Amino acid sequence: MFMKCYGIKEGKYGLGIAVCSGKVAGVFTRNRFKAAPVIVTQEHIRDGEIEGIIVNSGNANAFTGEEGIRNAKRMAELLAERLGVEAKRIAVASTGVIGIQLDVGWIEERIDGVLSRVGSSQEHVMSFARSIMTTDSFPKVCRVEFDGVEVLGIAKGAGMIAPNMATMLAFIFTNAEFEPEELGEMLRRAVNRSFNVTVVDGDTSTNDTVLLVSEGGRRIERSKFERMLGKVCVELAKMIARDGEGATKFVEVFVKGARNEEEAFKAAKTVASSLLVKTAIFGNDPNWGRIIAALGYSGVEVEEGLDITFVCGDAGRVKLVENGRRTGREDVARRMMEGSDELRIEIDLKVGDGEGYAFGCDLSYDYVRINSEYTT
Amino acid sequence: MFMKCYGIKEGKYGLGIAVCSGKVAGVFTRNRFKAAPVIVTQEHIRDGEIEGIIVNSGNANAFTGEEGIRNAKRMAELLAERLGVEAKRIAVASTGVIGIQLDVGWIEERIDGVLSRVGSSQEHVMSFARSIMTTDSFPKVCRVEFDGVEVLGIAKGAGMIAPNMATMLAFIFTNAEFEPEELGEMLRRAVNRSFNVTVVDGDTSTNDTVLLVSEGGRRIERSKFERMLGKVCVELAKMIARDGEGATKFVEVFVKGARNEEEAFKAAKTVASSLLVKTAIFGNDPNWGRIIAALGYSGVEVEEGLDITFVCGDAGRVKLVENGRRTGREDVARRMMEGSDELRIEIDLKVGDGEGYAFGCDLSYDYVRINSEYTT
Repeated sequence: MFMKCYGIKEGKYGLGIAVCSGKVAGVFTRNRFKAAPVIVTQEHIRDGEIEGIIVNSGNANAFTGEEGIRNAKRMAELLAERLGVEAKRIAVASTGVIGIQLDVGWIEERIDGVLSRVGSSQEHVMSFARSIMTTDSFPKVCRVEFDGVEVLGIAKGAGMIAPNMATMLAFIFTNAEFEPEELGEMLRRAVNRSFNVTVVDGDTSTNDTVLLVSEGGRRIERSKFERMLGKVCVELAKMIARDGEGATKFVEVFVKGARNEEEAFKAAKTVASSLLVKTAIFGNDPNWGRIIAALGYSGVEVEEGLDITFVCGDAGRVKLVENGRRTGREDVARRMMEGSDELRIEIDLKVGDGEGYAFGCDLSYDYVRINSEYTT
Repeated sequence: MFMKCYGIKEGKYGLGIAVCSGKVAGVFTRNRFKAAPVIVTQEHIRDGEIEGIIVNSGNANAFTGEEGIRNAKRMAELLAERLGVEAKRIAVASTGVIGIQLDVGWIEERIDGVLSRVGSSQEHVMSFARSIMTTDSFPKVCRVEFDGVEVLGIAKGAGMIAPNMATMLAFIFTNAEFEPEELGEMLRRAVNRSFNVTVVDGDTSTNDTVLLVSEGGRRIERSKFERMLGKVCVELAKMIARDGEGATKFVEVFVKGARNEEEAFKAAKTVASSLLVKTAIFGNDPNWGRIIAALGYSGVEVEEGLDITFVCGDAGRVKLVENGRRTGREDVARRMMEGSDELRIEIDLKVGDGEGYAFGCDLSYDYVRINSEYTT
């Protein structure tokens, strides 16, 4: 691929730039208070062409009114002038604190330094990934290759992660050749099966942005590309869940036997979202009663004769509920949970053929600490 | 009133009995996995008459199948035999751990002792209120009197509190004379404006039950009684929010200027439910950006020109957002929050005339501690 990028982080504030020429499609937050960069980027990429991306972390430029819009446009102009392209060929993204005006001067002072160092190596990609982090504890990058086709995804997540996206940004680059409309269709499907089933705290942010940039050059069957794109989005989503604020365990909820696929995803998301389930997991407490309660209020068709199984990576699997009856193996499950930083909850609802999943994490003291101290 | 009650608590387990002859109406959980006592009580009170209530704490008798139903019926029979009434005149309620069969023998051994001590004094009422507590830190009782009419409410709450009710039980007694249908209508309205707008963690339990018992004897205008009933339900709901698991602050969210009443309640509940808002409040962080984000994803009509004001009991009030603009008074708000265990968030959406409110609490380390250790 030809995409070149670089990023810097100074304390809470970061600046990342990607130079990438091609077709583009995006998926954005459904929050009614869309941040200024979301509004500007939606307008800029309307005709499906892009030359670069500029991202800042530390300030979300959200709920900042007309001045916020001017600042987001100014960010785009700063990069456009240097690349010698129109400002509308630049996508802008921001993440951080809401309601404070962006210091564009800070960006202007650093943009030439960042731009002079862009490149294509793994180190360049990692510097970009680090520059967009906020409370993330590790950079999130996933790359898959098949038959000369590459898909490279870079994301940030951590807090405010919820179905329908959250303070998450993801930038996905490929050399596969597709038109913007096709990119948009494929991206929306992939996002629905990855970022949109990832739950950290149920809060949906003002800034969520996922961009898919196709530089072209390689042709590939659409179905094959969709699998690659799906893989990258799911892996990034899992990294975001694993890195949920304060998380000590990655949690995957897999539901089968639901009335249909939609209900399976809904049931999985409800279980992954339950605070009582999340705190029980943090305490290595195989409290399947809370899973039952969550299934009961999820709104999907359920009957008592269900199965619940806990799987802890290589540590093994334990069925806790079989045909609606307690197996009494909580002690085994507890020991298994104590030895693993992963938990897969498998639920068989036995009312149909629908399958779905959700990604999440436990809820720990550190979630509270991180979020009660955030702006100070 | 003639209602007599008493209750005992031994470690995690409690037993409470109320002897009350009259008309009855109930509101129950919408969880699809209704606990056995909910199923049994819904059947028992169908013809609107009641002679007594038996409640146990420590075991929810939920997700316990046919045996659970038999145990709930047996609880009713134990009291019915002793009162010399039909079992269907007895309401049953349970709260505690899900998925473990109830030890009816424990109840049978203690029922005569409890029944021999029932009475009408404040001490009797408090013993009943304490017997139904689980993780509650204080008993919840509210009594109002007007012109010879009494309304006495006793509740338990603490965890799993969410709109559409949660692991909460409330028993309300009055000497006002109404038919079961009238009681039901008035109770549903009162519950919708009190328990159903009270959010601790968003989990809806399998056991929620609110009963309204009218012993009769006094006549009162319906509108006057509704105000009394509403007052009792709101006060009990506020106590439940104040006693949310691990809560350090009581939070009231008041929304005006919404497109309509329904949207005002929805916006208020969404703000009161946001984990990011709740953790910020725990940290005395006047992070109004998170309130903006929550309003934005609440699904109600919003515009940027809104106002947000924090009120901390007698400690004062600070406007943080005025006509969509930051006032910069976060430091004042922070100091005010540090000095108060109450926070009222007033939001004026300025798009209509709808008003609504919600009750909640902050999210602290102790919520995580309590819920990660619960079943051990």
